[in-house]
Amino acid sequence: MPEKNPLRKLSPDELGRLSVEAYRAAPKLPLRLLLDNVRSRYNVGSLLRSADAFRVEKVYLSGYTPAPPHPEIHRSALGAEESVDWEACPDPLPLVEELRRTGWKVISLEHTTQSISLWDMEWLPPPWLLILGNELIGVQDALLAQSDMIVEIPQFGTKHSLNVAVAGGIILHEAVRRLMK
Amino acid sequence: MPEKNPLRKLSPDELGRLSVEAYRAAPKLPLRLLLDNVRSRYNVGSLLRSADAFRVEKVYLSGYTPAPPHPEIHRSALGAEESVDWEACPDPLPLVEELRRTGWKVISLEHTTQSISLWDMEWLPPPWLLILGNELIGVQDALLAQSDMIVEIPQFGTKHSLNVAVAGGIILHEAVRRLMK
Repeated sequence: MPEKNPLRKLSPDELGRLSVEAYRAAPKLPLRLLLDNVRSRYNVGSLLRSADAFRVEKVYLSGYTPAPPHPEIHRSALGAEESVDWEACPDPLPLVEELRRTGWKVISLEHTTQSISLWDMEWLPPPWLLILGNELIGVQDALLAQSDMIVEIPQFGTKHSLNVAVAGGIILHEAVRRLMK
Repeated sequence: MPEKNPLRKLSPDELGRLSVEAYRAAPKLPLRLLLDNVRSRYNVGSLLRSADAFRVEKVYLSGYTPAPPHPEIHRSALGAEESVDWEACPDPLPLVEELRRTGWKVISLEHTTQSISLWDMEWLPPPWLLILGNELIGVQDALLAQSDMIVEIPQFGTKHSLNVAVAGGIILHEAVRRLMK
């Protein structure tokens, strides 16, 4: 490693992270997340934590996706449920239709006959609504039918898919890199 | 969406995932993962699941990182602890020194005075050992000092960092895309 900066970990102050108040006032990316029928509070909390890191404008929690406040969500969100703008919405279909009418592009993460690899996809012009579905059965068919694009992460193993919080983190990271570069 | 392929989810058979036996015999990528002092069994299981998806050659579990078999690891690994080659190694330093001597490049994920953004880094020639550390205090200094490169994922929120399984998934995905393209 180069010698000029002695190697040490950065303190929380040096990382320049925002306070909750500053975060709520700060500009967000044209990127929202819809978690539909995600069962695990751990996954919801972890996705809220990723949404905080990546300046997601809003997170919708639809169907039976658990919403804050809850100790298990808090434990994996580490408090990101306070900084991230989220909304519980029992039925996601009218929401998705309304967002599409106002120019949002709907991108679902799922293995289908029409899925495009995350490595090959051409991102549509933003704003983007990313949809993640249930841990076992994935994104429901009615939401797939409303999607402008369905994406899959290339995988080469024995399991059906990645954990939904990990897969969501990968696609969020990719989306944010596109938006910020 | 185009009309020619009627939209439907793919069945597990159509995904072409490997059996455990076929996976163990299949070629792997020149990519190993070292989990040092990762505390949570949930995170270890989730990282084993990602290692399976991304054909990681081997996962080392060092320090007090819990090892399989354990019901909590099994629950988040979904059995990937059977397909992925893993090894418990109490002290990671001799291992890392030996891998470096035999040509492995050591890449740690940490916020330091010498970290390079994942968005800007120039990947060294493989093979790569990726190091992830403890959920709270990160990668230990002795391993940082042995790293050829220290990488950070750009983040813009209120929290110190992403969940370690999510961050690990993001860097693994990026490494695998580089190796396979």
